[in-house]
Amino acid sequence: MTAHLYRDPSAPAPERVRDLLGRMTLTEKVGQVNQRMYGWHAYERHDGGHRLTDAFRAEVAAYDGMGALYGLQRADAWSGVGFADGITAADGAGVADMVQRHVVENTRLGIPVLFTEEMPHGHQALDGTVLPVNLAVGATWDPALYEAAAAGVAAELRARGGHVALVSALDLVRDPRWGRAEECFGEDPYLAAEFTGALVRGARSAGVAVVLKHFAGQGATVGGRNSAATELGARELHEIHLAAARAGVRAGAAGVMAAYNEFDGLPCVASRTLLTGLLRERWAFDGLVMADGGAVDRLVRITGDPVAAGARALNAGCDLSLWDACFPRLAEAVDRGLVAERTLDTAVARVLALKFRLGLFEQPYRTAAPPEPRSGPRELSERIARASVTLLAHDGAVLPLAPSTRRIAVLGPNADSIAQQTGDYTAPQRPGSHHVTVLDGIRSAAPPDAEITHAPGCDLVGGDLSGLPGAVALAAAADVAVLVLGGSSARSDDTSFDTNGAAVVTSADPVGMTCGEGVDLADLSLPAGQLALLDDVAATGVPVVVVLVQGRPHALPDLSGTAAAVLSAWYPGPWGGRAVADVLFGAAEPEGRLPVSVPRSAAQLPVFYNAKDHGYRGYVDQPAGGRYPFGHGLSYTTVEYAPPRLSRTRVTPDDPTLTCRVTVRNTGARPVRETVQLYVRRLSGGSSWPRVRELRGFVRLRLSPGERAEAVFAIGADTLASVTRDLRLAVEPGELLLETGPSSAGTRGARLVIAPPN
Amino acid sequence: MTAHLYRDPSAPAPERVRDLLGRMTLTEKVGQVNQRMYGWHAYERHDGGHRLTDAFRAEVAAYDGMGALYGLQRADAWSGVGFADGITAADGAGVADMVQRHVVENTRLGIPVLFTEEMPHGHQALDGTVLPVNLAVGATWDPALYEAAAAGVAAELRARGGHVALVSALDLVRDPRWGRAEECFGEDPYLAAEFTGALVRGARSAGVAVVLKHFAGQGATVGGRNSAATELGARELHEIHLAAARAGVRAGAAGVMAAYNEFDGLPCVASRTLLTGLLRERWAFDGLVMADGGAVDRLVRITGDPVAAGARALNAGCDLSLWDACFPRLAEAVDRGLVAERTLDTAVARVLALKFRLGLFEQPYRTAAPPEPRSGPRELSERIARASVTLLAHDGAVLPLAPSTRRIAVLGPNADSIAQQTGDYTAPQRPGSHHVTVLDGIRSAAPPDAEITHAPGCDLVGGDLSGLPGAVALAAAADVAVLVLGGSSARSDDTSFDTNGAAVVTSADPVGMTCGEGVDLADLSLPAGQLALLDDVAATGVPVVVVLVQGRPHALPDLSGTAAAVLSAWYPGPWGGRAVADVLFGAAEPEGRLPVSVPRSAAQLPVFYNAKDHGYRGYVDQPAGGRYPFGHGLSYTTVEYAPPRLSRTRVTPDDPTLTCRVTVRNTGARPVRETVQLYVRRLSGGSSWPRVRELRGFVRLRLSPGERAEAVFAIGADTLASVTRDLRLAVEPGELLLETGPSSAGTRGARLVIAPPN
Repeated sequence: MTAHLYRDPSAPAPERVRDLLGRMTLTEKVGQVNQRMYGWHAYERHDGGHRLTDAFRAEVAAYDGMGALYGLQRADAWSGVGFADGITAADGAGVADMVQRHVVENTRLGIPVLFTEEMPHGHQALDGTVLPVNLAVGATWDPALYEAAAAGVAAELRARGGHVALVSALDLVRDPRWGRAEECFGEDPYLAAEFTGALVRGARSAGVAVVLKHFAGQGATVGGRNSAATELGARELHEIHLAAARAGVRAGAAGVMAAYNEFDGLPCVASRTLLTGLLRERWAFDGLVMADGGAVDRLVRITGDPVAAGARALNAGCDLSLWDACFPRLAEAVDRGLVAERTLDTAVARVLALKFRLGLFEQPYRTAAPPEPRSGPRELSERIARASVTLLAHDGAVLPLAPSTRRIAVLGPNADSIAQQTGDYTAPQRPGSHHVTVLDGIRSAAPPDAEITHAPGCDLVGGDLSGLPGAVALAAAADVAVLVLGGSSARSDDTSFDTNGAAVVTSADPVGMTCGEGVDLADLSLPAGQLALLDDVAATGVPVVVVLVQGRPHALPDLSGTAAAVLSAWYPGPWGGRAVADVLFGAAEPEGRLPVSVPRSAAQLPVFYNAKDHGYRGYVDQPAGGRYPFGHGLSYTTVEYAPPRLSRTRVTPDDPTLTCRVTVRNTGARPVRETVQLYVRRLSGGSSWPRVRELRGFVRLRLSPGERAEAVFAIGADTLASVTRDLRLAVEPGELLLETGPSSAGTRGARLVIAPPN
Repeated sequence: MTAHLYRDPSAPAPERVRDLLGRMTLTEKVGQVNQRMYGWHAYERHDGGHRLTDAFRAEVAAYDGMGALYGLQRADAWSGVGFADGITAADGAGVADMVQRHVVENTRLGIPVLFTEEMPHGHQALDGTVLPVNLAVGATWDPALYEAAAAGVAAELRARGGHVALVSALDLVRDPRWGRAEECFGEDPYLAAEFTGALVRGARSAGVAVVLKHFAGQGATVGGRNSAATELGARELHEIHLAAARAGVRAGAAGVMAAYNEFDGLPCVASRTLLTGLLRERWAFDGLVMADGGAVDRLVRITGDPVAAGARALNAGCDLSLWDACFPRLAEAVDRGLVAERTLDTAVARVLALKFRLGLFEQPYRTAAPPEPRSGPRELSERIARASVTLLAHDGAVLPLAPSTRRIAVLGPNADSIAQQTGDYTAPQRPGSHHVTVLDGIRSAAPPDAEITHAPGCDLVGGDLSGLPGAVALAAAADVAVLVLGGSSARSDDTSFDTNGAAVVTSADPVGMTCGEGVDLADLSLPAGQLALLDDVAATGVPVVVVLVQGRPHALPDLSGTAAAVLSAWYPGPWGGRAVADVLFGAAEPEGRLPVSVPRSAAQLPVFYNAKDHGYRGYVDQPAGGRYPFGHGLSYTTVEYAPPRLSRTRVTPDDPTLTCRVTVRNTGARPVRETVQLYVRRLSGGSSWPRVRELRGFVRLRLSPGERAEAVFAIGADTLASVTRDLRLAVEPGELLLETGPSSAGTRGARLVIAPPN
């Protein structure tokens, strides 16, 4: 073999890319932007081991190489992969090496394949540690904790041969009817940006590249309908939907995934405005743009022809496609003049650049030794779950449960199901895993002589009331009833799936699933059976603690007459039951804060806190505001906030730095971890109508009873920037309030003038 | 007086404007763009007549002239003007002349004032003939009928001195939670455009200039919240929200009213993109842009200062303001350099041009003689009401009511209230007017020996069930029960109003009002009392006919088990009860077709038919589609549609004309007026993701029983055009279906190829 420049690790990566590109045939180039195959079709079980399939060999041969292989280790109900036929942690590196070796050794140029894997909340593979879903992560308001957890699960992924993690991070819950609300860090741009940055840093520290899902504006789909239309304008996009992507790009994300949804009338995968104008030209992003699964195929609805569809996406700025039948035909597109070969070269170069960046040419393989079992991610999963438990309402008395509590009735359809507390995009769990449901957790945490009774009382969905009397009898005999209600994204072997893995669940064919991809919900109320259970249990007079296990904020009625306490545990993951129990018994304080507004009903949507500030008085039959505001979360103590103090009350766009301090004091009898929130409220100026307020910072303080502390916010251009007429970020003259407080609805402000530049 | 050029009727108007402008002081110019005063503050009753107020004299003196006087003759609960103190038809011309004379004779230049009046559905003045609301007009699918009615009410307005009619026409019902849904012609751009053109032509034929409300996109406000935010992008604006304005401008509208809502983050009144870029530069519109009431004041939220707010609106392209405190201070804005005097000159020139166009300099006065009472508009009001009655569901048997029907129970809170059937923006009605409620109508239309009983049964709003037993007893004793349910926009002396006349009604202070400006509704279901009445009456086993009197589509449950027939009568106006009765008894056929989709619930919003075509499968708990589709409406017969036939199946953008024919046949036993609808469905091509289908034509045919006829559609560039990447209208290559049918959900299509130009 001659010493090719691209093989020389000491050569600069761009030169290696250029050299390699110059050696490639058109077919080989097309192969590098091809990610058509489902990874689990690349292998089969054989004699207790794994071997490559003919289909895989054929796919490699067809293009004399392979750009990326998606989901080699994916396991779930959709892929149909489980412990009987899949790849475990112990097998992972070996199988990956086998696949890689075939590619490297059986292609002319020996370009390694990129292994892309789903890592929505942990690596979606057998034995992958499952984290709470992103919405729970958002409720922790603790990016550092998430960064550690992301590093942990990325290390698992890397140890078994994966290179690239696909992670939902960019979408926002602007309409909680959307089934993918659970995959979002919340409704707020700043909060999502903080967690996205943490994700990218964490994964990179483990040597894993991140492709951020989904770019852009997928949280804005009309009616919360999955991957459907948006009516989104450029300004709303820039003001709300881009912050997380910008933060991820800054943190070094390897790529973004172009979303299914439209912007400006075109699916993002065909949007040159977004993928080239914004991402490349304005942000100077040099990473990868990957299409969402089958998204390029959908363009045939416009182009009428798959070859033209591939050309359209490539011309827009897509580099690597997924599962589609279009990109594999890009050679025809070049031949037909629909796309220039140099455009294809640019895409290929980006795929190759990532491979060089990851060092695949130097070391395409993992060691064959199975990784040590990691305790880190599991512990972090539980810590996230604990930090995410959000106390929405409390009579101030029932919690923490008194040590004297002897009889606890644990009721509700979400009390004792691991599947229902782990969320969508979860691999099958190893039989015999020591997982902890809420029922399990309460049993473990309760005093040894406590009597714990349990009945589901009703189904998750529907209005069957036959189980109520039994549950009510248990409640009537108890000192307290813990009702575990909410939703479920549990998939099963019976679930029908769309071609892209989204569940197909319609009102004509409900299957006990209320959440997750493909499972959008119109009426956000808890199902009739659950509400009836709550009413009937409350009617016994026993104190009721409602624990919501959910992947979205369900619409809540006024529960002040029925529940002594209401907590949201989100989907807390496999060990989440212990986290919930710790909070119930006071072994942990409730620390979660709402990453999303809780509506009163679907009829009053949307309810995000950072709405435009038009002084709307509300509907005639319902207020415009939700049941619980963004940022809200009670603790077991009380905290007093002084007004914020600014080091300067007048700044200029050129010199916008100041310090905002606020003194908070724990005025109750228990410790607290208080999330001090900083909002900006524009009083005048700016080139766009102002929002009610916008989160621009938060500080978490631990306070012992009686303790006083100061939260300090360093204010700068990032804090004060707004979106200009030409859609750039800048500090614009005007008057603001800098507000601090414990939630978006409980702030006090200090006035700041941004004087025009001289 | 010297012979000034501007006084010379033979001189071209632009020259007269230029001459006059050249003579004006800055103060006089500011006076011409000032419309600050409420017209009813200009006069007071005195000795049985009217005299000018000091306030009016002062306003004229302040600017030595007055651009326009809004609502001199307005009467309603908000203005507080009624028969005791207002201006009747007999007084109108005289008072207008008195006001005009003061302006002309007491100002240096003697520039006449423009009288602008609300004409939302008839002139909103004492004795003004009230038409059904626009949503009812939309349900007629009969622009010619509306054109005649608009001409009639405009003639009334003109006869009593008015010059300019302000009419809601441009807004679309994209979210029926919006209280102003009643003011829209429906959800569809094409339908609204047809009626807007008819309105402008009708009014112009009576010598009345029309200012079209509201420009632009007000139907797209977030959550259907009145005058609040939009997230609307430019493409959605162009594809959906501009067609009516374009049609109105083409038909010769004198002006458009810049809306409260935002576009691209700014209230329309501050949007140079819309008011100058689109309207002036692209459309070459040379008419007037009037700000909505107080809209310029709201800009202070951005500018921090009223003088700058006025400058901002003027710079954006507003010519004439309304009620605000900003435009009256434009001289300061010029002095401070915030706006160029030549920009003010342009606005003044447009105001003056309209005055010249209306001939005010030649004839500023009306004859003092009171106009003859006009029977025309009243008859047309009733004809519209009759044509708007929409039969949504029918068991095929109960209607028309058999002549043998002897006992009819007329129940429900909307059965016997004129105020509740006339809608918002309605002047007080003259005591003793011969108006017709549904109860009145049924009493008149029923056979002489029929026994008509009546009870409201419940309140319009709320869940008080105390009236149910009485009503149910009447139903049980009847052959048929007619339940008149729905909503109400009736204002009263007790109503609280916002500064711009919108009602202030919140969930904390409900006052039996569910619709109209300022009265947005979250949950679109009929109120609990009405639904209970329906259930209880249905439980008696008596056949139930539901008549919905409403200003929006309420969400309807599946009524197939409870109601034998369901009709929407919208707000049918003062004589609407006769129209309803005529349809019930078969004296008229049901002709109405839905101008808006009827949702199943607020939770599934939005439900417009022309959604983007993403093949959405629906929510897990509800379908995505509504209860009844756009265009739907039954008749008392059956009609069969053949497939459409095209004269050509292949056209080019340069030569896109063809003819589409469809044969329809009345296969039943009664006559019908069938609305044959033409939709375009894009299969491929175009620069934007296609919609499910889009209305592009309709033809109304009268068919006797057994009769066959052909609907003929001349297809051309307007029919086939779509919005290009650069937001222009063009015929783009691709493949379409041209579909015909009786509703948006019952079409058959023929394939048309638009071949690329050579």
